[in-house]
Amino acid sequence: MASAPPTRRLSSGERAPSREHALVPVGMATILPEAARHVRQLESELLRYFYHYGYDEIILPTFEYCDVLAPGLEPTLLENSYKIVDRTTGRILLLRPDVTAQIARTVAMGMLGTHLPLRLSYRATVFRYEPEHVGRDRELFQVGAELIGADDLSADCEIIMLMIESLRQVGLPSFKISLGHVGFFKGLLVRAGLSAEGQKLAEQAAARKDFPWLGEILARERVGKRSAQAILDTLELCGTAEVLSKGRALARGEQPLVHALDRLAQVYERLCSMGFQNVVLLDLGEFRGFDYYDGIVFDVFTDGIGIELGGGGRYDHLIGRFGRDIPSTGFALNVDRLFRGLNRVDPARTMTSAVLAVGPVAMMKELVSLTRQLRQAGVRVIQRAVTASGQDLVSAAADVGLQAEIPTTIVMGTDQRNRGHVVVLQFRQPMGDGRAGRSPLHRKTMSMSEFIASLRTDRKGVS
Amino acid sequence: MASAPPTRRLSSGERAPSREHALVPVGMATILPEAARHVRQLESELLRYFYHYGYDEIILPTFEYCDVLAPGLEPTLLENSYKIVDRTTGRILLLRPDVTAQIARTVAMGMLGTHLPLRLSYRATVFRYEPEHVGRDRELFQVGAELIGADDLSADCEIIMLMIESLRQVGLPSFKISLGHVGFFKGLLVRAGLSAEGQKLAEQAAARKDFPWLGEILARERVGKRSAQAILDTLELCGTAEVLSKGRALARGEQPLVHALDRLAQVYERLCSMGFQNVVLLDLGEFRGFDYYDGIVFDVFTDGIGIELGGGGRYDHLIGRFGRDIPSTGFALNVDRLFRGLNRVDPARTMTSAVLAVGPVAMMKELVSLTRQLRQAGVRVIQRAVTASGQDLVSAAADVGLQAEIPTTIVMGTDQRNRGHVVVLQFRQPMGDGRAGRSPLHRKTMSMSEFIASLRTDRKGVS
Repeated sequence: MASAPPTRRLSSGERAPSREHALVPVGMATILPEAARHVRQLESELLRYFYHYGYDEIILPTFEYCDVLAPGLEPTLLENSYKIVDRTTGRILLLRPDVTAQIARTVAMGMLGTHLPLRLSYRATVFRYEPEHVGRDRELFQVGAELIGADDLSADCEIIMLMIESLRQVGLPSFKISLGHVGFFKGLLVRAGLSAEGQKLAEQAAARKDFPWLGEILARERVGKRSAQAILDTLELCGTAEVLSKGRALARGEQPLVHALDRLAQVYERLCSMGFQNVVLLDLGEFRGFDYYDGIVFDVFTDGIGIELGGGGRYDHLIGRFGRDIPSTGFALNVDRLFRGLNRVDPARTMTSAVLAVGPVAMMKELVSLTRQLRQAGVRVIQRAVTASGQDLVSAAADVGLQAEIPTTIVMGTDQRNRGHVVVLQFRQPMGDGRAGRSPLHRKTMSMSEFIASLRTDRKGVS
Repeated sequence: MASAPPTRRLSSGERAPSREHALVPVGMATILPEAARHVRQLESELLRYFYHYGYDEIILPTFEYCDVLAPGLEPTLLENSYKIVDRTTGRILLLRPDVTAQIARTVAMGMLGTHLPLRLSYRATVFRYEPEHVGRDRELFQVGAELIGADDLSADCEIIMLMIESLRQVGLPSFKISLGHVGFFKGLLVRAGLSAEGQKLAEQAAARKDFPWLGEILARERVGKRSAQAILDTLELCGTAEVLSKGRALARGEQPLVHALDRLAQVYERLCSMGFQNVVLLDLGEFRGFDYYDGIVFDVFTDGIGIELGGGGRYDHLIGRFGRDIPSTGFALNVDRLFRGLNRVDPARTMTSAVLAVGPVAMMKELVSLTRQLRQAGVRVIQRAVTASGQDLVSAAADVGLQAEIPTTIVMGTDQRNRGHVVVLQFRQPMGDGRAGRSPLHRKTMSMSEFIASLRTDRKGVS
């Protein structure tokens, strides 16, 4: 899978790295505070939303024994996994390259009981050796959901609806779901008489929409001109309901192809009846690139990001590779790409929303109690005790505030007769550029509740 | 570091694993839904609390180049790290065994600007080969905070206060902070004339409070009886202010020892003046086991967990190993141990708090809109469409509800004249044990807002 160039610089790690002098491994960038806050918020919003759909989060180990997980991974993914020889057992450990396979293994082991269907969600990092380019493509943040033990139409629609509604919930401005069924394309390949290896390669080429490569494979496999054209045409069969009739023409009444189209038509129709007709596009060449998908598959795309933000599909035989077949479906979203698609921007520098609370060393307990009160009200507070007292306190506090580059400073303990009051100093922004000057813009005395109310009015400093 | 046996079974991975047939690597358990929800909640509560103290979260890469990070790691930690040869560069990659060293590297590289102090927080997994035993000790979940670029007393107190207040905030019932200064014990070893290697070993023995081993090392190093006794005695100097005078007696006026005691006395006094005298205990033998600590150090313990839940301290020279010295302090909490200490229990099975919403296939759009409304009101909803209509709908819905083992089912579309109303079916709990029977306990018709209000009153199904 190739990655699109990032639309904005997320973090310092996205600078093209000079490999010789690299201090941080490629494909694994640091996410700096502003972006990190948004990424975490995004993750937890998605997981909260999944929860309201009945999906329970599970936390899985980062490592798996290679021999245990391998049946769930296709050869290229296994090849691209990070591997370590376990010091204790001598067995090979994998850093998980995929969560769905891990969940399949966990379910097959009976760790989640026997009651079906199971609704599971996760936030996890997966690790893959990917070709070098900008972005965090070797350490991927994913969130996902799996609906295990349901083979009906409703299950396909539930998982797609969950993805659509979650993306709307987090505010993704415009996106499309490309919906297909792997049975159709696979059926065409089988009918054309491709070898097992040729079929595998053709599927990989299709997943990448790599027409020249697909053409080459078909030629090498000596596929007849008409069949080859049908296969190549299929990759371009995208759109609304008319795609299904074109597909039926290509199917020529053959059962596996017709079955795939029937299921696809039902799911499409149901999604349209749910009100999603403007979001869902049919794509008969939709092919996710994981060989465990064996039914409905889908990907999500948005403007400005040239690669899918996520996707999923039905895997009725994956769990069976670890035990007994349990029909299932699910999806994963790439948090990093989704974040880029959302383009969330925080105009304020983080610290400008904080308040500096200064008090005399002699009144530590009161200072602790004041800052506790502010934090409980949702205010971000940096607390500092100074040795000054009386009116000197205010000037000492102003010094600390300027040095810390925090525009709002409150000073307690200036007036022994009125202990509940604080002096509020407001400095000019931006600070630290020499223009701010020594004197505050405003200086007011007020009670703590007045101060908290003033922050609420400003919609600043309160989160 | 040894780990205490778990007080309750967190997850299936805590069963003593049979290594020969192990399907999941030891020390890296799966956290099942009920526990996972609490663990994630705990993490985000802590991070939110740190945020209100002015600490910004940073997300760091899971891997580090070994040669880059090594200066920040002591030899045993480096030895116990998971290592992989990077396929791209041939360099050795480490899975991070410690976050503080990573943050030091990141700060030294200038990735976080030049304005000090910096307040950073993180939630991260660290990886260490640890001796085999129950629990997740090879894949550790940590949350932590670092205050970078502040060498004063206030900084030491701020970071300790943050830890104490966060632990109180998440509801840890009773805990103690053991507070020390590594300079005191180190000073005693230097005065006793230990070799560099002997000193290192003695520090390790002290960190583990391993008296016999420490005695052996001192004997091997031919430390005089009186000095050896002073060193061994120090490990037991725990308590309140009287510990400081005993320490002063042992210091015999020597500068490094006296300096350490002075700083410790100041921090202790300040913490007491902040109201923390009942939480903080002095411990002159407190020694965290990381060689980068070079000032005030502390650990947190609670009843029933025989190992520290976390701890931290001052590291004025760690960042210097990657560039220029920046005095700093910080702490980390082990989320897993903290979770055990909190003993959070969720009496309800997860799905009993969910609602099943059933409607006819012919009314998909209305069903989607109804479930959307419920989820926005904070209700957990499983949605199902059935082909039945009219009064058959209710019996079809009851079947689905019983099969899904969800005690509350609402049915829409039963009355075409009154589309805003739903039929609410309430089944007996526990379900699925044969006693529930086919008939619901209650059956009522109500409007959606009445239904949402009824859930609120029950304090059930709403989160």
